[in-house]
Amino acid sequence: MQKAAIGSLAILVLVSSGAAGNSQAVQDIQKVLADQVAAWNAKNLEGFMAYYWKSDGLTFHSGPNRLRGWQTMLDRYKKNYAGDKWGVLSFSDLEVNVLAPDAAYVLGRWKLDGTAQPLGGVFTLIFRKFPKGWRIIHDHTS
Amino acid sequence: MQKAAIGSLAILVLVSSGAAGNSQAVQDIQKVLADQVAAWNAKNLEGFMAYYWKSDGLTFHSGPNRLRGWQTMLDRYKKNYAGDKWGVLSFSDLEVNVLAPDAAYVLGRWKLDGTAQPLGGVFTLIFRKFPKGWRIIHDHTS
Repeated sequence: MQKAAIGSLAILVLVSSGAAGNSQAVQDIQKVLADQVAAWNAKNLEGFMAYYWKSDGLTFHSGPNRLRGWQTMLDRYKKNYAGDKWGVLSFSDLEVNVLAPDAAYVLGRWKLDGTAQPLGGVFTLIFRKFPKGWRIIHDHTS
Repeated sequence: MQKAAIGSLAILVLVSSGAAGNSQAVQDIQKVLADQVAAWNAKNLEGFMAYYWKSDGLTFHSGPNRLRGWQTMLDRYKKNYAGDKWGVLSFSDLEVNVLAPDAAYVLGRWKLDGTAQPLGGVFTLIFRKFPKGWRIIHDHTS
């Protein structure tokens, strides 16, 4: 009986810490996204890119295109968003889903205001937790 | 010394079974995708949809649109791909990435041949392993 009670308690503690872990992960990822938006709107592209996995393994689907590598993504942003195309970025309808203690995905909408033509759409981000924190390993934007 | 050897062996077994688990997951997910293509090309929409999570929680980003729910997705396919719009589906450049024993994502390209206008693009699929097997819980297609 006592053994069973201790067993139940152990399970309860595991479940609670799992839930707490998830809620911490959700908070940490929400902070990454808020920091990215702030960096973009301060025209700090390096700050924005700091939350992408700095690796040739980073993948990026943009509309019908498939790209690979952190440097490729940085070069693309520099080329596509120069000058008055930069705009003011905002995210909305964010949904953070934790898949494992070190893996999560985020759904959301993005909008760029103040550009010559209005830009916006939806995104799917896949995050991995690294020693430095949560980083985007795949971005699908359309 | 013997203890250390047993310890190393235990770690080796764990790592191997982890890798074997991943390789099984990759095979199982590749089979799901092959089955989906076969079902689509047999005009078996229910068979194609069988590998999507049958839940209101299923999410689907298509171009700039954000949709939710298995039934919504089925109705959309019925409406958008009736008659000569059906076409012959193929996937290419598939990349299956396992995130956890019960979570994975797949990158790939899709093409519909034999339609009035050629259709194609890229996709990101997020899979979860359920008791019945691997199911798509999120699909971003553009």
